[in-house]
Amino acid sequence: MNKNSSNIMALAPNTSNKRETVCIFGTGDFGRALGHKMIQSGYSVVFGSRGTQTPRLIPKDAEVLSHTEAAQKAAIIIIAIQRQHYNFLTPLAEILHGKVLVDVSNNLKINQYPESNAEYLAQLVPGAKVVKAFNTVSAWALQSGTLDASRQVFVCGDDTKAKQMVMDIVRALGLTPLDKGSLLAAQEIENYPLQLFPMWKFPILLSLGLVTFFFFYCLIRDVIYPYVYDKKDFSFFIAISIPNRICPILALILLALVYLPGVLAAIIQLYRGTKYRRFPDWLDKWMLCRKQLGLVALAFASLHVLYTLVIPIRSFVRWKISSRTIAQALNNQTEPLNTTNAWLSDSYLSLGILGFFLFVLLGITSLPSVSNNVNWREFRFVQSKLGYLTLILCTAHTLVFGGNRFLSPSSYRWYLPNAYMLSLIVPCIVLAVKFVLIFPCLDKPLTQIRQGWERKPQYSE
Amino acid sequence: MNKNSSNIMALAPNTSNKRETVCIFGTGDFGRALGHKMIQSGYSVVFGSRGTQTPRLIPKDAEVLSHTEAAQKAAIIIIAIQRQHYNFLTPLAEILHGKVLVDVSNNLKINQYPESNAEYLAQLVPGAKVVKAFNTVSAWALQSGTLDASRQVFVCGDDTKAKQMVMDIVRALGLTPLDKGSLLAAQEIENYPLQLFPMWKFPILLSLGLVTFFFFYCLIRDVIYPYVYDKKDFSFFIAISIPNRICPILALILLALVYLPGVLAAIIQLYRGTKYRRFPDWLDKWMLCRKQLGLVALAFASLHVLYTLVIPIRSFVRWKISSRTIAQALNNQTEPLNTTNAWLSDSYLSLGILGFFLFVLLGITSLPSVSNNVNWREFRFVQSKLGYLTLILCTAHTLVFGGNRFLSPSSYRWYLPNAYMLSLIVPCIVLAVKFVLIFPCLDKPLTQIRQGWERKPQYSE
Amino acid sequence: MNKNSSNIMALAPNTSNKRETVCIFGTGDFGRALGHKMIQSGYSVVFGSRGTQTPRLIPKDAEVLSHTEAAQKAAIIIIAIQRQHYNFLTPLAEILHGKVLVDVSNNLKINQYPESNAEYLAQLVPGAKVVKAFNTVSAWALQSGTLDASRQVFVCGDDTKAKQMVMDIVRALGLTPLDKGSLLAAQEIENYPLQLFPMWKFPILLSLGLVTFFFFYCLIRDVIYPYVYDKKDFSFFIAISIPNRICPILALILLALVYLPGVLAAIIQLYRGTKYRRFPDWLDKWMLCRKQLGLVALAFASLHVLYTLVIPIRSFVRWKISSRTIAQALNNQTEPLNTTNAWLSDSYLSLGILGFFLFVLLGITSLPSVSNNVNWREFRFVQSKLGYLTLILCTAHTLVFGGNRFLSPSSYRWYLPNAYMLSLIVPCIVLAVKFVLIFPCLDKPLTQIRQGWERKPQYSE
Repeated sequence: MNKNSSNIMALAPNTSNKRETVCIFGTGDFGRALGHKMIQSGYSVVFGSRGTQTPRLIPKDAEVLSHTEAAQKAAIIIIAIQRQHYNFLTPLAEILHGKVLVDVSNNLKINQYPESNAEYLAQLVPGAKVVKAFNTVSAWALQSGTLDASRQVFVCGDDTKAKQMVMDIVRALGLTPLDKGSLLAAQEIENYPLQLFPMWKFPILLSLGLVTFFFFYCLIRDVIYPYVYDKKDFSFFIAISIPNRICPILALILLALVYLPGVLAAIIQLYRGTKYRRFPDWLDKWMLCRKQLGLVALAFASLHVLYTLVIPIRSFVRWKISSRTIAQALNNQTEPLNTTNAWLSDSYLSLGILGFFLFVLLGITSLPSVSNNVNWREFRFVQSKLGYLTLILCTAHTLVFGGNRFLSPSSYRWYLPNAYMLSLIVPCIVLAVKFVLIFPCLDKPLTQIRQGWERKPQYSE
Repeated sequence: MNKNSSNIMALAPNTSNKRETVCIFGTGDFGRALGHKMIQSGYSVVFGSRGTQTPRLIPKDAEVLSHTEAAQKAAIIIIAIQRQHYNFLTPLAEILHGKVLVDVSNNLKINQYPESNAEYLAQLVPGAKVVKAFNTVSAWALQSGTLDASRQVFVCGDDTKAKQMVMDIVRALGLTPLDKGSLLAAQEIENYPLQLFPMWKFPILLSLGLVTFFFFYCLIRDVIYPYVYDKKDFSFFIAISIPNRICPILALILLALVYLPGVLAAIIQLYRGTKYRRFPDWLDKWMLCRKQLGLVALAFASLHVLYTLVIPIRSFVRWKISSRTIAQALNNQTEPLNTTNAWLSDSYLSLGILGFFLFVLLGITSLPSVSNNVNWREFRFVQSKLGYLTLILCTAHTLVFGGNRFLSPSSYRWYLPNAYMLSLIVPCIVLAVKFVLIFPCLDKPLTQIRQGWERKPQYSE
Repeated sequence: MNKNSSNIMALAPNTSNKRETVCIFGTGDFGRALGHKMIQSGYSVVFGSRGTQTPRLIPKDAEVLSHTEAAQKAAIIIIAIQRQHYNFLTPLAEILHGKVLVDVSNNLKINQYPESNAEYLAQLVPGAKVVKAFNTVSAWALQSGTLDASRQVFVCGDDTKAKQMVMDIVRALGLTPLDKGSLLAAQEIENYPLQLFPMWKFPILLSLGLVTFFFFYCLIRDVIYPYVYDKKDFSFFIAISIPNRICPILALILLALVYLPGVLAAIIQLYRGTKYRRFPDWLDKWMLCRKQLGLVALAFASLHVLYTLVIPIRSFVRWKISSRTIAQALNNQTEPLNTTNAWLSDSYLSLGILGFFLFVLLGITSLPSVSNNVNWREFRFVQSKLGYLTLILCTAHTLVFGGNRFLSPSSYRWYLPNAYMLSLIVPCIVLAVKFVLIFPCLDKPLTQIRQGWERKPQYSE
């Protein structure tokens, strides 16, 4: 105990900006990079090395000693060694007693071992205070100026004082420590840097599939059909016209898919008469990636807006309008204003603008910093009420866009309906079912079930 | 004391991922939901129940005991009972001594009781360590996959160790604990989930009122007037043209209202000769919702931009341009380029673009995560300097838009001036007064007053 | 010690919402403002003053005593005095023993003194627990409703309990405390409020320089040249046409400058054969402001989008299109659709849309709250892979825009090439070098070097 308290004394800040000594076990790339950075920040660094001879590439001002000697010089020991070599620490247990051991290791796969590396280390050296830290920063980031993402260092450990000491080092290196609680969190912290947008996989694969399908669908209808029948080359439709068909279709379908699982969950709960049974796995997963689905839908909607707004700049559109005007001028005729058309055109544009505006609002409230500042009641209001309003506006936008073309036979080429008609199927189903669920005869039991009531109470006992 | 330390031992993490026992008092919906979730996360859960018989719907792996027996099994007891029934805990005071009591209760109204529920609980069981937590999550959110807004759990309490234990449970359930300090914060935490955008009420009601007024104003001028005098049906103006008049008007007025209270405050301080007297209540409230006013203004400005950019796609506009072109072609005349018009049109568009661009910048800096990363000096620079520049640009945009139409009698229909003229009143007043306040004869005393100087120093003594 | 523990007892929250006594040394503007606010929040405030007579302007409910008497009344003493007067505290050392001293001071310049004010205070009164806090809030903000930026109060100190006490006061005043660790952080905290966008200076100055250059360049080519040769007045180009040339040029150049330092760093590392030598200073600085460079580029890109989308609304453009249509009508000719032109026009628009879309995505991921939620791997994926894709798309957009105009002699006026050609130089160089670096013969050694391998290992020993 005496030793430990003297160690803590060594941590007292001196005004000369000279900081305490830190020991690093392991002279690999990460250990060296961390040592470099710590020396730059005013720490004395002692490396603990296996061999007796000085390894290469060690930072100039650092000492290299045997593990035992190095450990005695510092209160904090950073274990920059891979997990499979941890057992060399067992004989050192006595020297490491009371020391703060910092586990910086990462695995190659998610959940590679049954227990986290830090917990394994704590088992091996029971007398030491193990703290997990630094595994989210890379050696490269430590040396070459840190980018934003690498500033956060998750720290966890059972000993509060030890954690504080490590968090102070993290801060001294210009990084931001984030207390994640006790050592139980180590597993999660070790899995964190291995992830690559896990929640985005399904939405992105789904939309890639849909994009491919609708691309060829539109290619057949809009490029190949006129080429076969009219010998007209509209291949340049691939650049703007076809993307501008695909984007709104995907935005609408994906937006409807955000609200479909909620509707399905309500039906399942009504049918089962209880909320205490788990949903099927696919539904659970679907519900967890609703936010990502919505954001992908918003991305397609934004592209649709941009593609639509450049329409009047397109050379093809200018040519079309101008040649129509010339034809009218040559025929000496002036068309009167068609009020119905003006109404249809203006209202579908207006519905689209309002829908997109609400959609962007939804997107903004899903930003972490915004959603952290609203409470549960506000979040539900925005995501549920405004969300359905967005879906209604966007569906109406598509319906009015179709206008009186729905039943006209010229919309069907090779028996293929216009692509936007296909996009209306899912949203219309969602809205219809949701509309039915609002009726009191269904809404009342559903509310009761969600408050814990059960139709067949024997169930969960 | 002995008991307490053994309780803490029970919290030591085992590598088998099996966590300590937690007791829940109360078998209502929230207690059960929390129990379910804790069992899923590896905790042993004991329910403390009033009756001796096992209540229905309790999660399978949970034990149900009497309050006394259950309390003895765990170091942490979650009180999932309504405040009015708390007094049943008084006889249990001895058993609860040294235990961590977690108050999860919510009220039905803001500030329903003089003291918070958690403080009331601490008074009832003085020997226990009361921690407030979990009141911001709903039973529904606990069971059906958590959405972002419900991930945050505010935690407060006077005992740091007890708070740490509760925060570890919060983390283990996949939620994010947020330390709000001592138990004094409980009142605020209990009010939090009851709010529904309190700061947004005034800006939204104000803009709804203004929208209604300007809608009928424009309807009379742009639809009813031409119908009465020219028998022309411009009812489709309701879809785009009228919204595109209302949006910029509201954006400009609301933006000016953001800066008006600052100007009023300066006048009041100059008049009073001191900064140590409180502003009238309405001014205080107004100043506190400036950010929300500004964001609503930004929303209207964004809608204005979208409505403006679709103009060339509107079927009415295409018809108008094409019929004008045809008329010229038929009359065999080509109009020369009017450079003045080109200047007016281009500069009002350019002013609008720059104003909107700065407005969006202001909006981005008001995002919580961005404004937390700038210091006071930077924030004032952006919100004050850039804010006024935005107001100047937007006012100039509207003035140049008016161009030479201001005095033309055709702008007045039924003696009603064009709506945008009305929108210029407030911003012009704000800019004029601000301009006067910049003069040294007023700016110097104002700066002194804001640094603590008083004209009549007897005042605050 | 006894005194200290009784002090802490005084902090125990009473249900009557009456809080403990806090002492403030110094009756200047900030001390008074803080006192006002604390009294409003339920604290008792005692001012410690030099003179024996009551100073003016002290809040009504506050007591004013001598320093010694005041210090004895409270556990927490706020030192609202400038650093140069701190030495008056030395004689009080005995009374201040065990007290929490809160240093609220700021300096006039960054790094004005060798040690921070708080550390200097800790040296002067070694027995006290010094906590740094409140220096980021202004007296003005304390009194006139707090804006977002001023809500954050950085707190640091070596004594955890003392820090907790101060953080509770911060919370009670409605501000947000942020624990920055031990007293070592005081220097950084004291420098913080003095900064004014330090990382933005270089990107903004650079872009101002480039804007000026390209403005005159375009003015000569697009306004002065036609005026000299054709006597045509295109001065109104200054409003939209010239900004819409400058903005895309700057966006492209600045975006390329974001990726140039990475490419240079790779070349330097390959040449040196090691990553363990520091880059030249200018490269280090450049790398640190890449994010800001990118955001300025995004700002120009957004302006370019807005300026482009209003093109069809411009009165000049309407006149140009209509007079061209009329000319064709009068000549009785209808131009056929030029498919090559349609392809070029559509694909350059489409490339621009996709590039801008990815650019906005990059901008969103650089928001602090978003980048904090992605790990290092995800951040690198977005900023490096998507970043280069954005650069490729934007460069292609500019190349296709040029189309077949590149070699046409009419593009050269007074031997000056079209401005967009100049903008292609930097991005093309970056892309070419990056392309070369991807080849295995260079990529393999580079990867090795970045993993710690050295070509001349004697180097860093």
